Amino acid sequence: MRIQAQTLKGFRDFLPTEAKKRQFVINALKEVFELYGFESLETPGLEYEEVLTGKYGDEGEKLMYKFEDNGKRKVALRYDQTVPLARVAAQYQNELVFPFKRYQIQNVWRAENTQKGRYREFLQCDIDIIGSSSPLSDAETITVAVKCLEMLGFKDFKVLVNDRKTAGFYFKTTFDIPDEKQAFVFRAIDKVMKIGKTGVIEELVKGGFRVKQAEEIFDGLKTLSAPKNIREVFGYLAKMGVSQEKYKFDPFLARGLDYYTGLVFEVDIEGYSTGSIAGGGRYDNLIGMFSGKQIPAVGISFGFDRLIEAMEEFKLFPDGLTVSKILITNSDKAIEIANKLRQNYINSEIYLDEKDLEKQLKYADKKQIPFVLIFEKEKMILKDMGKRTQETLSLEEIIKKLSACTCGNC
Amino acid sequence: MRIQAQTLKGFRDFLPTEAKKRQFVINALKEVFELYGFESLETPGLEYEEVLTGKYGDEGEKLMYKFEDNGKRKVALRYDQTVPLARVAAQYQNELVFPFKRYQIQNVWRAENTQKGRYREFLQCDIDIIGSSSPLSDAETITVAVKCLEMLGFKDFKVLVNDRKTAGFYFKTTFDIPDEKQAFVFRAIDKVMKIGKTGVIEELVKGGFRVKQAEEIFDGLKTLSAPKNIREVFGYLAKMGVSQEKYKFDPFLARGLDYYTGLVFEVDIEGYSTGSIAGGGRYDNLIGMFSGKQIPAVGISFGFDRLIEAMEEFKLFPDGLTVSKILITNSDKAIEIANKLRQNYINSEIYLDEKDLEKQLKYADKKQIPFVLIFEKEKMILKDMGKRTQETLSLEEIIKKLSACTCGNC
Repeated sequence: MRIQAQTLKGFRDFLPTEAKKRQFVINALKEVFELYGFESLETPGLEYEEVLTGKYGDEGEKLMYKFEDNGKRKVALRYDQTVPLARVAAQYQNELVFPFKRYQIQNVWRAENTQKGRYREFLQCDIDIIGSSSPLSDAETITVAVKCLEMLGFKDFKVLVNDRKTAGFYFKTTFDIPDEKQAFVFRAIDKVMKIGKTGVIEELVKGGFRVKQAEEIFDGLKTLSAPKNIREVFGYLAKMGVSQEKYKFDPFLARGLDYYTGLVFEVDIEGYSTGSIAGGGRYDNLIGMFSGKQIPAVGISFGFDRLIEAMEEFKLFPDGLTVSKILITNSDKAIEIANKLRQNYINSEIYLDEKDLEKQLKYADKKQIPFVLIFEKEKMILKDMGKRTQETLSLEEIIKKLSACTCGNC
Repeated sequence: MRIQAQTLKGFRDFLPTEAKKRQFVINALKEVFELYGFESLETPGLEYEEVLTGKYGDEGEKLMYKFEDNGKRKVALRYDQTVPLARVAAQYQNELVFPFKRYQIQNVWRAENTQKGRYREFLQCDIDIIGSSSPLSDAETITVAVKCLEMLGFKDFKVLVNDRKTAGFYFKTTFDIPDEKQAFVFRAIDKVMKIGKTGVIEELVKGGFRVKQAEEIFDGLKTLSAPKNIREVFGYLAKMGVSQEKYKFDPFLARGLDYYTGLVFEVDIEGYSTGSIAGGGRYDNLIGMFSGKQIPAVGISFGFDRLIEAMEEFKLFPDGLTVSKILITNSDKAIEIANKLRQNYINSEIYLDEKDLEKQLKYADKKQIPFVLIFEKEKMILKDMGKRTQETLSLEEIIKKLSACTCGNC
């Protein structure tokens, strides 16, 4: 019986063209992360179930991939990178150097409803600073996010910043909303971009507020100005070379997750409607959960699939994002020519089978290899596959031309 | 109750120092792979169980991580990268361009006996050429392996090459060993490096051969010379710039896996005793399993953990494999200085908390950041943390010095 060649719903293969784009974005992010001194951390795909359970709320629990391994251990697939980071911070507390600035770019697995265009395996890109409560850390995290988007070529985007504590204090002192009810209010107002004022008011009313009070909360929020700690972070952002147009105080920003304890932020790209491209904040009570110590932390997570989608929408991927720069067609000299090109760090392919020129050109065309070199009657003909032109050149000239190539991928 | 911060047996965290080394090796491999026109492929961590089962023999089956997902689908974690490649070759046969030269660097999961120093999650690095039966493909695969090891700095290593078909023909014509018994003979002689001649003879006798015949098989193998197809591949290797000392015909090489159909090869590093560092061969019957077509294929797989281990043993990692080149200590100018350095692509850290100089120097020391910049009385003091020296320089001089830094990581 022949088995059907298929992938599970919500899981994806990335063929070379897609894989290249992903690699392009990952490389750009890593470059910025490392420019600011963030270092890579990798954690296992499987963890003890008890390490992960109880950390993501009821909703998260349902989406976790859990099973018993051959040794009857209860295990679970990585669900995010923050809980494993908390485990690492406790397990290696004597080895790590704090403040611990790490980035982590690994897949996570969630049994999401795929109807919504969500995936069950997707790449997370996180940076976090563990062990510093300085506003400089908050500013650096935001700066890195801004520099990443600039590096990728995005122009019109904005980091929205709010503080849970300030908003909480305002809720308490002005409206007498107790601590335990604030998370509910945060979740309601966080939806303003999606459901508008009317929607938020409805949500609040559903939660037991009177209509008038709900309206007062909403309208009151609008009048708030940035608190002192946010102004301090904004001061650092300016010093760090972030343009003032790139950030603003937004009293409605709440971020869904309950674990944020101070600053929250998200990055919105103008004209990209799927949602925010990155989000994060300060969470001073989470990292210490395994060690029983309070360890301050701030971080931001990029929505990798959204980044890729937005890059496509805004046509930010460079043209000719191919691996091979040149195909050398069949000839006695093909290998020798390829050796020379490779010695000059030019990604080169020789055509591996004996085929007519037509077939070889078709191969280059399909693979979008920008140049083809044909050795014929002791001459080298370089075909530019994009421009559909050709010229006779020496190997040295070809090397010079391809090394100076502006395809954006060299 | 506090949950214990621990990883599962056979699973590993890679803290920054280790993660950096891994990244260094991955980057080198990718660079060579792409120089030869191999492109990246990614496949999901989870597959339908039926896609993977029955492909790895009884032994493999037992080691596979299998479970039922929330939708009662039988699923399994990626066990290797070859079966998913076969699935991809069938599923996207109209989209892919053949010969399809892909590399794949992803984790696989196997419930190995960890007593033997094996891991249950480990990185596989494979390159394969799908859809070409040309000896050029075999030669290119071997060349890439050689160039990878050279790129990483290995000097004394050798690619052993044999052909299953030739040895099989020899077994059949000289000793009348039927096809179905040849796999057993291959597995026995493959162990010669581990168990010696006596051991191999014993194995063969256990399998029903008379002692005299077993000895004749063994001694006869020694007298074999490289068959024509291997000599052809060797001819291409020479043309591709691979030194003759780097490869040799080895009639005892069999490679355990039954699926090889022609050339087999493995790479041994002299003085590294854990085992071969890479292995592969031609397998013309496997890739077509999902499509029902015969699709020729050749590939090689690197033992990533062994590569790392051997790099350590031979001290091939560059000194100062750190992310940050420089720490800028607390001062009013710290951010401004960092901005300038980063504009010049120098990975820089500012110290995020308010601490005394002693603490900041200790931080740099522990993280092995090679330089520290102290701004004091309008002067910039650059401390070389390795040499324990310091000098007063202008920022331009510092940028020049660090850009030209020969730490091997710039």
